[in-house]
Amino acid sequence: MAEPATYYADLNPSPRLLLGAGPSSVHPRVLRVMATPLVGHLDPQFITLMNDVQQLLKFVFEAPEDAFTIPVSGTGTAAMEAALCNFIEEDDPVLICVNGYFGERLVDMAQRYRADVRRVDVPWGEVFSASQINDTLSSFPAKIVAIVHAETSTGALQPLEEISEVVHAHGALLLVDCVTSLGGLSVGMERVGIDIAYSGAQKCLSAPPGASPLAIGPRALEMLDKRQTKVANWYLDMTMLTKYWGPERIYHHTAPISSVYALYEALRMAYEEGLGARFKRHRDNAHLLWDGLGALDMKPLIPLDRRLPSLTTVQLPQGLDEVAVRSRLLNDYNIEIAGGLGAFKGKVWRIGLMGHSSRAENVITLLGALERILS
Amino acid sequence: MAEPATYYADLNPSPRLLLGAGPSSVHPRVLRVMATPLVGHLDPQFITLMNDVQQLLKFVFEAPEDAFTIPVSGTGTAAMEAALCNFIEEDDPVLICVNGYFGERLVDMAQRYRADVRRVDVPWGEVFSASQINDTLSSFPAKIVAIVHAETSTGALQPLEEISEVVHAHGALLLVDCVTSLGGLSVGMERVGIDIAYSGAQKCLSAPPGASPLAIGPRALEMLDKRQTKVANWYLDMTMLTKYWGPERIYHHTAPISSVYALYEALRMAYEEGLGARFKRHRDNAHLLWDGLGALDMKPLIPLDRRLPSLTTVQLPQGLDEVAVRSRLLNDYNIEIAGGLGAFKGKVWRIGLMGHSSRAENVITLLGALERILS
Repeated sequence: MAEPATYYADLNPSPRLLLGAGPSSVHPRVLRVMATPLVGHLDPQFITLMNDVQQLLKFVFEAPEDAFTIPVSGTGTAAMEAALCNFIEEDDPVLICVNGYFGERLVDMAQRYRADVRRVDVPWGEVFSASQINDTLSSFPAKIVAIVHAETSTGALQPLEEISEVVHAHGALLLVDCVTSLGGLSVGMERVGIDIAYSGAQKCLSAPPGASPLAIGPRALEMLDKRQTKVANWYLDMTMLTKYWGPERIYHHTAPISSVYALYEALRMAYEEGLGARFKRHRDNAHLLWDGLGALDMKPLIPLDRRLPSLTTVQLPQGLDEVAVRSRLLNDYNIEIAGGLGAFKGKVWRIGLMGHSSRAENVITLLGALERILS
Repeated sequence: MAEPATYYADLNPSPRLLLGAGPSSVHPRVLRVMATPLVGHLDPQFITLMNDVQQLLKFVFEAPEDAFTIPVSGTGTAAMEAALCNFIEEDDPVLICVNGYFGERLVDMAQRYRADVRRVDVPWGEVFSASQINDTLSSFPAKIVAIVHAETSTGALQPLEEISEVVHAHGALLLVDCVTSLGGLSVGMERVGIDIAYSGAQKCLSAPPGASPLAIGPRALEMLDKRQTKVANWYLDMTMLTKYWGPERIYHHTAPISSVYALYEALRMAYEEGLGARFKRHRDNAHLLWDGLGALDMKPLIPLDRRLPSLTTVQLPQGLDEVAVRSRLLNDYNIEIAGGLGAFKGKVWRIGLMGHSSRAENVITLLGALERILS
């Protein structure tokens, strides 16, 4: 039998300012709610809460009223997997747009569900044009086109309106990764015509990770309804979960109750702030950061016209020991920023100004710390 | 766009005493920890915590030192799915023992991973003998034998020692569902020879659901290592997750940080109490319940020699409006107990005395409330 250590210390982490690629810092209101005693997952009071969370999810996704929304019982990657596995049957043609790490992940996942995956690539940091998608769909009649709205690995913002028109003209569904956009910039599910969208709680919504937003529009619900085979993932099976999160209330699995509490509070805060004001706050603080980086001889990698307000990739000066600087930020100033991921490892930093982390005082703190470390 | 309600109320659930099939009531120490500000999932302080959680998981599973333990980023069903999908490749022969609802779930899940599933059944509430498993394995050389240690739907406790011998004599691995046993009665992974075991956080460990214990012994790790195909589930893929929760620390997905905090605190409380004392507490309070039920002309469904201390199924008196009584318990006394599941719906109650809920004062409160409602 395992011999445990004789002493386990009180949990006492340092007070980090989270300005990386997520999680973002969580507002005290949301933290407090996490400590609420639990009710059962079939308690009438929890069911009322489920309804409210679903309605608030429609609000942040800007979803049509007949969409189905749910917090997936896991972190953002679980919501990504739910977005794919419920709509893929073996050999279904799926087109995946890859311009960063999370596009690659979509490819790997869709292949595990035995989709016939066609990928279309542009270099990391660039975005896709509608004509490029149109050309590909002309020779590859996909059932689903998957694309990332806000690439967390590159900081690029993908415009979706024209692509949505093209995708639907070809009779396909549009599946969108909104992990680093939802709650920080407009996703506009109904306006854009997105059929399936997913996100994480710990980015621009600033709830702890554990219950992740998923929205399914009416066309996608119809596709779900017409499946010939069982969903190849039990835990994330929306043919069953729509019955627990719908009027039938048939037990499927125990929801992560405290995480649903936290998501409720975080969504309620977004509702109180208003989406317009919230998006403006994210833009304003991003500009404050970009201006300040210039004074440090650093600049964002992504051109302004497709640059995310929620996450900035910063080009690193020649010869900078970037790991050492990030360590000093963390150890001397309790500030977390993220390094590059995948192809961008060692080449960029990723600075997130998401949700509760998107505040002017945080930008100033980061810039001041960087100035002291780099000088 | 969705028109949200104009007002969302403060989260203010009633103070429930949770004596159902889970979640159990959470100790204030664990609730407080949930409100701890987050650190990043790659922060050195989080990595230290990950190591401690893994060590404490070995402690409660009574696992060998060379086992790999991990809190799966989801609720117990996600851990169940992780226990299956990582060890199944297409057409692999898997024997599943079904004597309740969760055995059925294992069958459904394993089939979705395209296992060649053979099931062996005994009636709900009964348990399996080693000779029965031996007979089946003689004609069906399974790679994995899956069995439920503590059936949450029936309240039956499955002895495992002899079955483990038989399973290993046939060269198979033993996969055990410990959802309603881990932390409340001995799982004894090393002593029994269990190869794969999983549980939930919200039962006898009394942490909120969201990060679920999984333990993989050395033989199963070897099987994982020898896979010919990718795991058919990305989020739960242990060939990648062992690299994030192992020395490599390669990012896979964002862990549910607050849920890992809570699991740490709950495991630490189990460590401080000691397993022997904890198991005795669960037994003692179960006896207190069983004695008290007799005075109400109710009795447990399962004979004493295979009755779970953590969850009691109660036979309902003829003509009792069981839903009405449970509603009164909830609405008049804030006590949750569970109804029957599946084949037992309407036929039994399920009373859980798990983790922090397993206290003498809770038993007395429940018995007193039932006496008043039923008289």
